[in-house]
Amino acid sequence: MSSSPQAQAPSPGVVFDTLQAYQRSVALKAGIDLDLFTAIAEGNQTLSAIATRIQASEKGTRVLCDYLCMMGFLVKQGADYTLTADSAAFLNRRSPAYLGSMANFLMSPHIAEMFEDITGVIRHGGALPSDNGALEPEHPMWVEFARSMAPMMQMPAELIARMFAGSNAITVLDISAGHGLYGIAFARHNPNAKIVGLDWANVLEVAKENAAKAGVTERYSTIPGSAFDVDLGSGYDIVLIPNFLHHFDPATNEKLLRKVHAALAPAGFAVTPEFIPNEDRISPPRDAMFSMQMLSTPAGDAYTFSELEKMFHNAGFARSEMRELSPFPQRLVVSYK
Amino acid sequence: MSSSPQAQAPSPGVVFDTLQAYQRSVALKAGIDLDLFTAIAEGNQTLSAIATRIQASEKGTRVLCDYLCMMGFLVKQGADYTLTADSAAFLNRRSPAYLGSMANFLMSPHIAEMFEDITGVIRHGGALPSDNGALEPEHPMWVEFARSMAPMMQMPAELIARMFAGSNAITVLDISAGHGLYGIAFARHNPNAKIVGLDWANVLEVAKENAAKAGVTERYSTIPGSAFDVDLGSGYDIVLIPNFLHHFDPATNEKLLRKVHAALAPAGFAVTPEFIPNEDRISPPRDAMFSMQMLSTPAGDAYTFSELEKMFHNAGFARSEMRELSPFPQRLVVSYK
Repeated sequence: MSSSPQAQAPSPGVVFDTLQAYQRSVALKAGIDLDLFTAIAEGNQTLSAIATRIQASEKGTRVLCDYLCMMGFLVKQGADYTLTADSAAFLNRRSPAYLGSMANFLMSPHIAEMFEDITGVIRHGGALPSDNGALEPEHPMWVEFARSMAPMMQMPAELIARMFAGSNAITVLDISAGHGLYGIAFARHNPNAKIVGLDWANVLEVAKENAAKAGVTERYSTIPGSAFDVDLGSGYDIVLIPNFLHHFDPATNEKLLRKVHAALAPAGFAVTPEFIPNEDRISPPRDAMFSMQMLSTPAGDAYTFSELEKMFHNAGFARSEMRELSPFPQRLVVSYK
Repeated sequence: MSSSPQAQAPSPGVVFDTLQAYQRSVALKAGIDLDLFTAIAEGNQTLSAIATRIQASEKGTRVLCDYLCMMGFLVKQGADYTLTADSAAFLNRRSPAYLGSMANFLMSPHIAEMFEDITGVIRHGGALPSDNGALEPEHPMWVEFARSMAPMMQMPAELIARMFAGSNAITVLDISAGHGLYGIAFARHNPNAKIVGLDWANVLEVAKENAAKAGVTERYSTIPGSAFDVDLGSGYDIVLIPNFLHHFDPATNEKLLRKVHAALAPAGFAVTPEFIPNEDRISPPRDAMFSMQMLSTPAGDAYTFSELEKMFHNAGFARSEMRELSPFPQRLVVSYK
C-alpha cells in the first residue's frame, strides 16, 4: 500500500482471480452451449448479428463475448468479434477438430458433484463412502465420457496408431475401450489388424457405433464386462490400456496387469496412454493436476512413470519406457512382455 | 499434428484448461477451509507434519499441496512446502491482511446458483424471473458479504480515506455501507468526521460491530432501509457509494444519484469505488470481467467511466473524474455537486 513502486509486493489479485476461476469454465461452456463460436465462424461479427444468430439478448451476448476475449477465445477489433486460431479449430461446430462436446463431460454434474465436498475428500484421501460410485458396473457416466470425450481422443489415438499399428496381421485388445477410438485407429491404419474392445456393455454400444463409422466393424469384436473379472483371451500382439489405471490403487492395477501379461503373445507389449506427472509431481501441470480429479476415486491417482514402471514390473513385464504424445497433454508407457 | 515444430499451431490445451478452471477455485477454497496455509506458516513443511496439523490424509494433503504449487500459492523444494509471499500475506489466518474469508462470499451457494443457468441468463440479458432475488430487502447474502469481504475492503477503504478524510469537521454518508469499512476509515483518519451508514437493518449490525472495533461508535450513526426509499438527510460533505451502482440500470441509478445530489452540501462530492472497465470493455480484466457477475442481477452492469459520468451528469452533478486505486483492482469516480 506504499506509494513507491514495488513490483513484487504481495497483491490480493491472485486470490481474487483464483476464487473466481470457476466463472471461466462456466463462461466457456456457455459459449459452447450457445454455439457462439459457430455463429462467429459463419461471419456474424457484430453484437447484433451474433445475438440474433444465437437467439440471445444483445447485452448478454456482449458480456459473454467480452469475457471470452479476455480469456483468449475471441478477438475484439473495434466493436467486432472474430475467432482465435484455437477457437476456429476446436470450438466451431463445423470444424473437423471440434471439441466442444468435451464440456459435457468435464463439467457434467457427475464431475461437479465430486467437488462438492472436496474438503472431506482431501481429509479422507479419496472418495467418501457416501459417493455414488462412478466405478460401479455400467455407470452412465462412462457412456457420457465415451460420447463427449471422443473428439479430444482422436489426436492421441492417431499418434499412437502411427507409432505401433504397422502392417502385419495383429490382434489388439483395447481395455476400457470407451469410445473405442484407440483400437479403431489401429484398424484404420492397418487393414490386417483385428481389434477386441473391452468395456461395460452400455459403453461398448458407443465403441461399436464408432467402429461402424470408421468402416471397420468386421474387424472389431467386443468383450463386455469388467476387465478385472472377464476372460481377456490370449495371444494379443498389443494390449491398449488407455486412461484406466489412474482409477485404482497400485495393488489393484498389478492384479489387472498380471492378466494383461498373460494375455499377450511372447513378443507382445502393452501401450498405456495416461496423465503422467514428472517425479516432482508438479509438472507438467496438465498431467500433474489430474491427481486432484483422481482424488474423487476411492484410491486412484495420476501416477509417475516410476510408479507405473513398478506396477508393470511387479506384474511380470520385462521393461517399460515412456514416450511423449506432444502436443497432446498426456504421455505413453510402453511395457514389453 | 505435423511433426515439424509449429509454435503457433492450435492446441486443445487451452480449451481443456478452461473447462477445468473451476477446479482451481475449489482447490484454493479447500486450502483455506482446511487452514493449510496457516499450518505451513507455523513451520509444518513436510507432508506428514502438514497432514497431521490439518487433520487430513497424507495423500489428500499431497494432492492439494501439489495443486496449490502449480497455481502459485505454495513452493515445493524437494519434498517440503513453503508459502509464497502472497500466501503468507493473505492466506495465513494469523496475518493481519488475511483474506481467506473472501472465499465464503465469492464461492457461496448464492453466487454459484447464479451460474447454474448462465445460458438462460445470457439469452435473457439478466437475472431470470425465477431468480430468488439477492436484491430483495434484507437478503442474507449481504450479511455474508459484509462479514466475508470486509478484509478485502480494508485496503481500498484506507486508500480512499487517505485521499479525502482531511481533518475538518465533516459528515459522511456511506450508502450501502455493508461492513461499514469505507465510512469507518474516514472516522479513523479524521477525529472530526461523523459517519452515517445506510443499509438493510440486518447488514448494519455488521457495520456497527466494525465501528465498535474501530472505537468510533460515538461518531457512527445509521439509517436502516433501502437507499431508494429512505430520507437520506442533507448537508453531507461526502457521500460514499461503494459497489452499489453496478446492481442497477442507469435510469434507476440516476434516480438515486438525484437524491444524493440533493443530500450533499454545496461544496460536497460523491465518491464511488467501483469495477470500472475501460471503454473497450475488455480491460483491465478484473474490472471488465465483473460484468459477467452482474449479468446475474436484473439489469446491473460493470459500467465504464463514460457511462457513470453520464449518470452523475444527468442527476445534476457538475463534473466527475476517475482515479486509480492501484494496487487494488478497482477504480474510483469522484463527482462534484
